[in-house]
Amino acid sequence: MTKSVRLEEGDASKVLVPVGSNKGVSVMDLVLRLVGIAGTLGAAIAMGTNEQTLPFFTRFVVFNAEYDDFRSFRLFVIVNAIVCAYFVLTLPLSIVHIMRSAARGSRILLIIMDTVMLALLTAGASAAASIVYLAHNGNTSTNWLPVCQQYGDFCQGASGSLIGSFGAVVVFILIILLGAIALSRHAKRVVL
Amino acid sequence: MTKSVRLEEGDASKVLVPVGSNKGVSVMDLVLRLVGIAGTLGAAIAMGTNEQTLPFFTRFVVFNAEYDDFRSFRLFVIVNAIVCAYFVLTLPLSIVHIMRSAARGSRILLIIMDTVMLALLTAGASAAASIVYLAHNGNTSTNWLPVCQQYGDFCQGASGSLIGSFGAVVVFILIILLGAIALSRHAKRVVL
Repeated sequence: MTKSVRLEEGDASKVLVPVGSNKGVSVMDLVLRLVGIAGTLGAAIAMGTNEQTLPFFTRFVVFNAEYDDFRSFRLFVIVNAIVCAYFVLTLPLSIVHIMRSAARGSRILLIIMDTVMLALLTAGASAAASIVYLAHNGNTSTNWLPVCQQYGDFCQGASGSLIGSFGAVVVFILIILLGAIALSRHAKRVVL
Repeated sequence: MTKSVRLEEGDASKVLVPVGSNKGVSVMDLVLRLVGIAGTLGAAIAMGTNEQTLPFFTRFVVFNAEYDDFRSFRLFVIVNAIVCAYFVLTLPLSIVHIMRSAARGSRILLIIMDTVMLALLTAGASAAASIVYLAHNGNTSTNWLPVCQQYGDFCQGASGSLIGSFGAVVVFILIILLGAIALSRHAKRVVL
């Protein structure tokens, strides 16, 4: 069976628009970005307000733990804030993709930026996670004692805020997957 | 200007192959994967053989540090080994892409798997990095003392092995970028 396809240059969008079945993918992309905003914003706020002062103190020392004492936790808050802002900034583009199902260049741009942000967020979340693990379990060979017995609330707050951040990592992987699917469908439809 | 394009179903590759300018991108992809193998293999070996026993000991205690004492470092070795194996396994696919410049489905599959591996490797590298940072600087509020004065060689070995791993993270981002570019060129060429 032979098909003959007529394409006019500069008019390619007209050929591509009617297919429209990338719409579902684009809507899912938008929803996932909203989930990502909630996750990273929640994680940044939970960690940023995490502080515990113990009820006993000496004349010179107040026993106090806050996220700012740990470089990894500070990094965690900054990274989550950056990624949250990135999600907000890409919302308009995501909405444009729902309307212009055949957009290609902007989809590729999004995939690349999403990838960089995925790496950034994963780095921040894992660095914080390894400190949380250490706070829970300590390390005998370096004589770092677990501190979660004393700073129970602080540890719980830090552990909880990791959830939002790792949730956003999963969201990013799904978004990149959707972007690749949208690009592939697009190409397939042009060929046939 | 109007162009007429004839496409035969099931024979699309014949129409697309002659463009061939994805070849450069595919060769670069192969070279980057080889760099990634070197980086992750080096990182895994450097960390996996990292051990230091201090020259003084008591009757009951030998002061010894090895990567296996730290969960994050163990994770680091495992993750780097997995990613290295993944790079090796995807080499044939990368070579196929050099010959079949128009391959689309396999490119998308690679982008998705690369993304997952990027997240995995970044997580492992950052978790190890935050422990290395702690070993260098310690943390006052939890009374974790820096141990790099005693375990100088161990710390240096751990810091060095991070380089290979973070190098591989950059390689992954470039590979995903190249994959997206290859997909976009492909689509563009079909439309015009």
